[in-house]
Amino acid sequence: MGNSIGNLFKLTTFGESHGPAIGGIIDGCPAGIILDFDAIQMELDRRKPGQSKITTQRKEPDHVEFLSGIFEGKTTGTSIGFQIKNTNQKSKDYSHNTNVYRPSHADYTYDKKYGIRDHRGGGRSSARETANWIVGGAIAKQFLQDIKINAYTSSVGNLILDKTYRELDLTKTENNIVRCPDKIFADKMIELIDDVRKQGDTIGGIVTCVIQNVPIGLGEPVFNKLHAALGHAMLSINAVKGFEYGSGFNGTKMKGSNHNDLFNTDETTKTNLSGGIQGGISNGMDIYFKVAFKPVATIMQKQNTIDSDGNLVEMQGKGRHDPCVVPRAVPIVEALSALIIADYYLHYKARK
Amino acid sequence: MGNSIGNLFKLTTFGESHGPAIGGIIDGCPAGIILDFDAIQMELDRRKPGQSKITTQRKEPDHVEFLSGIFEGKTTGTSIGFQIKNTNQKSKDYSHNTNVYRPSHADYTYDKKYGIRDHRGGGRSSARETANWIVGGAIAKQFLQDIKINAYTSSVGNLILDKTYRELDLTKTENNIVRCPDKIFADKMIELIDDVRKQGDTIGGIVTCVIQNVPIGLGEPVFNKLHAALGHAMLSINAVKGFEYGSGFNGTKMKGSNHNDLFNTDETTKTNLSGGIQGGISNGMDIYFKVAFKPVATIMQKQNTIDSDGNLVEMQGKGRHDPCVVPRAVPIVEALSALIIADYYLHYKARK
Amino acid sequence: MGNSIGNLFKLTTFGESHGPAIGGIIDGCPAGIILDFDAIQMELDRRKPGQSKITTQRKEPDHVEFLSGIFEGKTTGTSIGFQIKNTNQKSKDYSHNTNVYRPSHADYTYDKKYGIRDHRGGGRSSARETANWIVGGAIAKQFLQDIKINAYTSSVGNLILDKTYRELDLTKTENNIVRCPDKIFADKMIELIDDVRKQGDTIGGIVTCVIQNVPIGLGEPVFNKLHAALGHAMLSINAVKGFEYGSGFNGTKMKGSNHNDLFNTDETTKTNLSGGIQGGISNGMDIYFKVAFKPVATIMQKQNTIDSDGNLVEMQGKGRHDPCVVPRAVPIVEALSALIIADYYLHYKARK
Amino acid sequence: MGNSIGNLFKLTTFGESHGPAIGGIIDGCPAGIILDFDAIQMELDRRKPGQSKITTQRKEPDHVEFLSGIFEGKTTGTSIGFQIKNTNQKSKDYSHNTNVYRPSHADYTYDKKYGIRDHRGGGRSSARETANWIVGGAIAKQFLQDIKINAYTSSVGNLILDKTYRELDLTKTENNIVRCPDKIFADKMIELIDDVRKQGDTIGGIVTCVIQNVPIGLGEPVFNKLHAALGHAMLSINAVKGFEYGSGFNGTKMKGSNHNDLFNTDETTKTNLSGGIQGGISNGMDIYFKVAFKPVATIMQKQNTIDSDGNLVEMQGKGRHDPCVVPRAVPIVEALSALIIADYYLHYKARK
Repeated sequence: MGNSIGNLFKLTTFGESHGPAIGGIIDGCPAGIILDFDAIQMELDRRKPGQSKITTQRKEPDHVEFLSGIFEGKTTGTSIGFQIKNTNQKSKDYSHNTNVYRPSHADYTYDKKYGIRDHRGGGRSSARETANWIVGGAIAKQFLQDIKINAYTSSVGNLILDKTYRELDLTKTENNIVRCPDKIFADKMIELIDDVRKQGDTIGGIVTCVIQNVPIGLGEPVFNKLHAALGHAMLSINAVKGFEYGSGFNGTKMKGSNHNDLFNTDETTKTNLSGGIQGGISNGMDIYFKVAFKPVATIMQKQNTIDSDGNLVEMQGKGRHDPCVVPRAVPIVEALSALIIADYYLHYKARK
Repeated sequence: MGNSIGNLFKLTTFGESHGPAIGGIIDGCPAGIILDFDAIQMELDRRKPGQSKITTQRKEPDHVEFLSGIFEGKTTGTSIGFQIKNTNQKSKDYSHNTNVYRPSHADYTYDKKYGIRDHRGGGRSSARETANWIVGGAIAKQFLQDIKINAYTSSVGNLILDKTYRELDLTKTENNIVRCPDKIFADKMIELIDDVRKQGDTIGGIVTCVIQNVPIGLGEPVFNKLHAALGHAMLSINAVKGFEYGSGFNGTKMKGSNHNDLFNTDETTKTNLSGGIQGGISNGMDIYFKVAFKPVATIMQKQNTIDSDGNLVEMQGKGRHDPCVVPRAVPIVEALSALIIADYYLHYKARK
Repeated sequence: MGNSIGNLFKLTTFGESHGPAIGGIIDGCPAGIILDFDAIQMELDRRKPGQSKITTQRKEPDHVEFLSGIFEGKTTGTSIGFQIKNTNQKSKDYSHNTNVYRPSHADYTYDKKYGIRDHRGGGRSSARETANWIVGGAIAKQFLQDIKINAYTSSVGNLILDKTYRELDLTKTENNIVRCPDKIFADKMIELIDDVRKQGDTIGGIVTCVIQNVPIGLGEPVFNKLHAALGHAMLSINAVKGFEYGSGFNGTKMKGSNHNDLFNTDETTKTNLSGGIQGGISNGMDIYFKVAFKPVATIMQKQNTIDSDGNLVEMQGKGRHDPCVVPRAVPIVEALSALIIADYYLHYKARK
Repeated sequence: MGNSIGNLFKLTTFGESHGPAIGGIIDGCPAGIILDFDAIQMELDRRKPGQSKITTQRKEPDHVEFLSGIFEGKTTGTSIGFQIKNTNQKSKDYSHNTNVYRPSHADYTYDKKYGIRDHRGGGRSSARETANWIVGGAIAKQFLQDIKINAYTSSVGNLILDKTYRELDLTKTENNIVRCPDKIFADKMIELIDDVRKQGDTIGGIVTCVIQNVPIGLGEPVFNKLHAALGHAMLSINAVKGFEYGSGFNGTKMKGSNHNDLFNTDETTKTNLSGGIQGGISNGMDIYFKVAFKPVATIMQKQNTIDSDGNLVEMQGKGRHDPCVVPRAVPIVEALSALIIADYYLHYKARK
């Protein structure tokens, strides 16, 4: 259970970092979409490990193979099976963790839930799973070609970008390794992450995402509110601790007289504290939200912990891990956004 | 679509504030649960309008009638139908809004999505819907009798309670009308809401919720993470703009060496920045989260807006609305929490 | 669980024959459909008990009340709640069955599954539930106004109508109380049922259903084949033991050279042994299928059985039951057909 | 859509006969099941083509590779990904069919539904898909080790086995290539199929399936009746035209006084016309049902048909196809039965 997202545009996934492959099935993608395979691979490259000094140094090519649902470069309307082979399974990196519960990892909960755990990695809790989401999201993006989805790093630790997305040039996000479109801030963030890395520590941060050109009418008024689906998706990403859209937590401090988005006569709104969604339904304005990531649990410092027999043990991360997940999370946030919007777009179309 | 929540313990609802009744169907509640009907009504009373000077003065008894699924005071295991009659439908309160789009309401998105709108109220976007959730949640609470779910008001506007839930006596939440267990803070909050109300304005706030005694192992590692389901549910409540659990947005500023929850030898953790959930699965520690509510959109001040013909019009709220939704949202947050935990508990049991 | 049918056009129901009401929620009906309430009531009247000498003499008006989702006679696109009050709950009819397991009823399985049973009736196994389906189906029919759905009685006991639906005038189905469009056969069937009734016995039969003007392309090639969904729906009706479409069981005796439906140049087929569905997808030809009903289990003769303590007891049906369910099943078969086609039509539209 | 079956024990599949592989994901299989991989392969071998003179002569090893969800021979409770490579893709066999609509195949409906078709095979309508089901079913069988599922060929054309399953020794089903446990009948069936094959023709038949040792209480009383789920699954198999359980279509000819299953004092029933399911819920007696298969549409005789431009063309099957699908359908019927029972068993356990 729990390996699927979406209803009409649905991604179901499998795979652990230490098996032969991860992969998934995209069910419900409409027929006749001409796929740009380079664009899909480019999205995978944005997420892959080893891409810069501030990400894990683990190298994996993350090449996706499509097994079905595509004929002569077009989607056929049937289920698209795909896999990404695991080429870099350094099991020895993990051999010291056989029965140790790493703090703030899922080792303990896994063991208690399933009574069995593949100690060579995090099982389904491994961030490697997110490569599957990138594939699904990349295809969803191509289906939604008129809709623009752009995420970027808006904070690392206490470095909080003091500009809204409207003040930024989102085409510059990929110009630096931390994926912050403001160069001055980006440089500071990179320096901070690099410092933290040298300390053998990790640090949290925030990804902001903007979705533009969404048709009016996506989302349902009660339990399938568009922002609830986006929130569910974002809270599915490893290390995410919070989600807010529009005015978010800051909106709790405001009065209605300041918070209300007054209309222009062309039916746009003067402000957009609603974040492009009113009553759970898109209103045509930009949708924007923030996703909070905690610091990665694997640190290169010594920590005390326990093993599955209840013994106190000392451990130290030895694997190749990210000092900050936020830069690599940017394409993941976009991919899940695309999956949700694609699913809700199909629901919208069913009743138009 | 979108009128159901849950899979094995599922609530499906209907109803607008201006029809004859609202109601729902609870599908999947196990058989043999002895229901305490007074407790159910008490939860409805906590949510109902007109209960104090800081809530809407609209009076509705909100009496629930059960129509099926219960025999001799016990659940029979079959679907439980219920309804709450609408007794106070003052349509004239709304007659001036016939084709006006109220700012930051769902009027505009409803009209565009459905092409038809019952202008007498907010349709399914009316907060009246949440009475249905209270009924479902009250039954879920009785099913989950060993699990404690307590929510309370932790901020109103800039008044932010500077204590964690562990420093509070949660049995005192119902001692005041704002539902903040700290009396000093509660008095300040009540004063603030009353001031805002006199200005014809509204204000936002935050509800904190704590869930205790949850078995280890609820939640799935990928898309059905327990916190993602809780987040989805909370983001379904009207006026909610954000959700965070455990360290939340604050955790983004921390380093891994401070954020990791180290184990005690009894398998509890010394800290609980994880918020009782690791890798999407409950670890037996307290689950806690925050829900951000924006200020209510209906204000008693004049606002400019447009009507469905694109004319600029001036409007002023005349209905009986809440100056701050947070006090009445407290039981709603608990109800949805109970529904999610009940659903995930059944999934857990299926595979034990 | 199990009280819903459909995904995009979904009916969820509740109710026992001995509670205050039965009812349901239709979720996903598109907005703007002008409802003909008389037509809905007429469908209920076709199903209601007490309509002729060959049905149960129990009288129930079966008046439906709509509680939401309709404004000024049109669907609003939101969930439609409805209820049908139980007005004729003669509990004494059932008082003799308190803990007796009636043969071939669900009494025994209910008791074992739930550990609790409302002995005053069949609980959710009561055929009264089908009134809810009539309401859902009647609305689905109005949504599908260009699609014609006609069911009729094609056999009772050994009286098997020796004509295909093409040889019959389906507008004559309602001309007689057994709902067989062939008057000569109808008279024989009525006489047979009446004889069986006088013996205190019951008898089975078959309903044939024809669905015309279905667009090409409804249904999915693997698990959501259109005929599998129709079969699932029909097998949900009380007393149904079998389902076949197109050539059905008879097709097992044929050779491919005779069974294949050759094409005309206008893309219709010369024969239609496929029953309007090829590879699970509608091909534009008439869809037709048969539904097998066993004889009603409640007979007015003495039978030996056991009670919940394992005692042998003698029992005799005293309630007011149908000697043959088939005539009243005709509108039920149509209603479920309409629900399935509506659901699959919305799926089809989502990807067009 | 439509590539999944089940809710708590769910199989999702992909793949066409002419892509690199087919495969699937099993989601929800409980943790800790020790898998017998030979038993899984043996089930695949029962289904595979080329196994005898009365099946297609196409040879495919159908070797399954598991990619996740299994560690040290046991299920881990997470999603099990698997693939079966396509090794025998003789595209030239199909090159003559590029734009021809084969009669009673899904070519025409596919083209109309999707606007694109992989003319090298039947796409998702290919019976190759059923190898995926075998894998899912084989794992379900191992999860359900106390439940016995046995299917067999009970008719081919007009050769209808005149014994019930109780009169047969079901351990003898695999003793002959037609999979009929009665040797005399089996020989006749083999001869008939061989004759039909020599004529370049095909023939239909029936598979009977018996499920024993099912706990009392599986299935839900309304829309998730156990037999409705079984029917849905069976109607998902290629070429199936009908499903009946217990007394089936024959029961329509009976009277209640003969059809009712009277109880023994040990709560078993004297007869079992109910087919082990009453009110949609298993009663502990044997579940049995029949599945009707039409003759395969691909015949080796000349047929007139049309192409996608509406031209009349003459065609003749040249591929390697089965003269009768029934022998190879036997393990498929068992596999889908196991998937349904596993899913319903988990639902049952959730509420016990």
